[in-house]
Amino acid sequence: MADHDRMNDLEAEHEGFILHGAVVYSRDAKTLEAADDAYLICVDGLSKGVFSGIPEEYAGLPVHDLWDKLILPGFVDLHVHAPQYQFRSLGTDMELLEWLDTYVFREEASYSDLEYAERAYDLFVEDLYTGPTTRACVFATTDPDATLGLMDMLEETGLKTFVGKVNMDRNAPDYYVEDTEDSLAETYAFLDAVCESGYENTQPILTPRFTPACTRKLMDGLGRIAAERHLPVQSHLSENRREIEWVSELEKDAAFYGETYDRSGLFGSNGKCVMAHCVWSTEDEIALLKKRGVFIAHCPDSNLNLSSGIAPAKRYLEEGMRIGLGSDVAAGSTTSMFAAVRSAIQSSKARWRMFDESVKPLTFPEAFYMATKGGGAFFGQVGSFEEGYEFDALIIDDEPLSSMLDASGRIHAAERAERVMYLADDRHIAGKYVAGRQLF
Amino acid sequence: MADHDRMNDLEAEHEGFILHGAVVYSRDAKTLEAADDAYLICVDGLSKGVFSGIPEEYAGLPVHDLWDKLILPGFVDLHVHAPQYQFRSLGTDMELLEWLDTYVFREEASYSDLEYAERAYDLFVEDLYTGPTTRACVFATTDPDATLGLMDMLEETGLKTFVGKVNMDRNAPDYYVEDTEDSLAETYAFLDAVCESGYENTQPILTPRFTPACTRKLMDGLGRIAAERHLPVQSHLSENRREIEWVSELEKDAAFYGETYDRSGLFGSNGKCVMAHCVWSTEDEIALLKKRGVFIAHCPDSNLNLSSGIAPAKRYLEEGMRIGLGSDVAAGSTTSMFAAVRSAIQSSKARWRMFDESVKPLTFPEAFYMATKGGGAFFGQVGSFEEGYEFDALIIDDEPLSSMLDASGRIHAAERAERVMYLADDRHIAGKYVAGRQLF
Repeated sequence: MADHDRMNDLEAEHEGFILHGAVVYSRDAKTLEAADDAYLICVDGLSKGVFSGIPEEYAGLPVHDLWDKLILPGFVDLHVHAPQYQFRSLGTDMELLEWLDTYVFREEASYSDLEYAERAYDLFVEDLYTGPTTRACVFATTDPDATLGLMDMLEETGLKTFVGKVNMDRNAPDYYVEDTEDSLAETYAFLDAVCESGYENTQPILTPRFTPACTRKLMDGLGRIAAERHLPVQSHLSENRREIEWVSELEKDAAFYGETYDRSGLFGSNGKCVMAHCVWSTEDEIALLKKRGVFIAHCPDSNLNLSSGIAPAKRYLEEGMRIGLGSDVAAGSTTSMFAAVRSAIQSSKARWRMFDESVKPLTFPEAFYMATKGGGAFFGQVGSFEEGYEFDALIIDDEPLSSMLDASGRIHAAERAERVMYLADDRHIAGKYVAGRQLF
Repeated sequence: MADHDRMNDLEAEHEGFILHGAVVYSRDAKTLEAADDAYLICVDGLSKGVFSGIPEEYAGLPVHDLWDKLILPGFVDLHVHAPQYQFRSLGTDMELLEWLDTYVFREEASYSDLEYAERAYDLFVEDLYTGPTTRACVFATTDPDATLGLMDMLEETGLKTFVGKVNMDRNAPDYYVEDTEDSLAETYAFLDAVCESGYENTQPILTPRFTPACTRKLMDGLGRIAAERHLPVQSHLSENRREIEWVSELEKDAAFYGETYDRSGLFGSNGKCVMAHCVWSTEDEIALLKKRGVFIAHCPDSNLNLSSGIAPAKRYLEEGMRIGLGSDVAAGSTTSMFAAVRSAIQSSKARWRMFDESVKPLTFPEAFYMATKGGGAFFGQVGSFEEGYEFDALIIDDEPLSSMLDASGRIHAAERAERVMYLADDRHIAGKYVAGRQLF
């Protein structure tokens, strides 16, 4: 970026600006706010709200007229594996445990070659940068140096991310398993290196892979780190039936899967925690998820691809649990959070019709909420344009998706946002802001 | 198209040509043929097969070297509604009958304004032309003139289609319902006009909307036309549970839904027949579908969007029934048959895991087969590169989807084809042939 541009950005960030266009955002899971012609105000990186005209106190701010473009909050990907990006949408005829052995471990191990890691992560980061995501919780590999390299790249983009060096000390191939003590020591070293880096956008997150791959000793060690350093945690929970059975065989003392994290202090008792999937969580597990305020990363595309099942996301939402969406690349085929919204809605309908009529399908406003404000809460006041929220925004040029109904005035902002979830891709993202800073 | 180009096309068609690249096609539902470096030969619009080198008898043919591009058969959309294209991916929170009343009838009625119809159909036809589809069975509206206009446009593209003027004489709004006699008379007039048009690529197909919207008298009349003129038939069958109940109330004499078509000669007894959906077909209905050789247009994206359910496509396939895929725009969100393949696989996994473990998930080769050779059979020897098949081909530039695994030689043609189903769109379609003629 030229120095001149950067100065303009900083100036704009400090002084604020106004975007004029069609605006859609969530107030809560049931309330989608939509306006065809609105002014969205940003001052010092925060939203001041959405108005039908420019309030007098902001009259001096520059107005960027986006005409008929659509302005949406940035999307939050609560669960994505950066080193799996290279084999997205391959081997879709497998279930979780076979797929881990065939694709995942082998590929992740190759990231200890830092040259390979750099070239591969560059493809992932470029995709995330150009797509709908403004914030993400990212799994890297066990290699701390490769993970720091990934963090450097992400920092550069301006996206806000949590990135985890993966910990795993059992039930993995010889070429991709850690010694328990080494795993903990490398985690400390990794965290120290992150502290020294002075990242503004990129934060570490503790990342035990999942219970089958982590001994109790490793979990306890990570729990101590979480407590000492007030760090957030991400992992996997109750994704696949065989996996859950395996956990119950490995950890006979635990009453349910979630307890294997909780007893080590890795389930929200020492700080924020996000668990991917929760497809088959039991009533006891759900009660503990609630009690601890754990975030659920609902990953519908992944859960379909690996035949894991369909999580009762609507129930979680209606019971006031913390829930957002994850792409879960590469079990999910794409990093596009638009696709995650579509997949969440479609799979909830299948679940309702074919499996359990007591849990109703997700509506478009609900799925949109999960992908923005729902997941955004993991990052603070993020994912909405309500006053005080960090200013993350996408500028969508949906003209190529428009039809005769648009021309006749029968399509409004909320319907355009719905259509974007089903039909748009990176071609339609004309601009992106994170915390008030324009990335492009 | 310039005359010069057209001459070249005709010459090429007569003399034949060879495409050199990576080739993937289905031999049967279980057998996906894939070669990383192959020669695909076309003579007089027909495939002569796929070879590892150029056989001597074809040595004189021009070779088009496509380098690392991927060559797939053209895709066949067995069920799509042209006049619904304008509202694709809108109103996805509704079920079938509410959606018909809210969106479908109102929009379709507006096609009697021929200027509107021309502008709207132009958007649909352009989308079909640039996407993966080479052949399609298309529903138009009740208006014969607008339908002829659509056929003119489709003819011009070089795509091969069956197009139906819709018949419906009950249970529809006053502004969009036909008188029975008028409906039949207009169908005769429509068919005569098609005969006079001299279309090469575009054929008529009888199109009773569905049983709830067609009286017995109308059905019988259409059955007579089918018998007199040896015309194919397309309609809807057993899509939604409330719809099926409604049919049983309306047609108390029929033992099951399919019989309401069969007793009028509209279920394959007078010629080819394709029925969309078959989500909830009973054993008796399945037996009759088999007996009559009816094609099933499996429309997974539509069935998810309207919460209809998930058809047991794998069972139909394994029992040797005729089955292909349909986009079913606009209940399906997109005309992309790549997306239909992905949706077929994903929804079959959900059905298996959540509903009925006796019907296994569809594999990628099976879904690919349905979208090409399975549906292609409705058009004759279509949808494969085996010798004697009509030469429909897509040239895919999947380089933008490639990853480090491609560079290291770990990804081959079949895996590239799989990835295309999950990630590619019209940007990646670099060329298209129908019956040996290059469209672009």
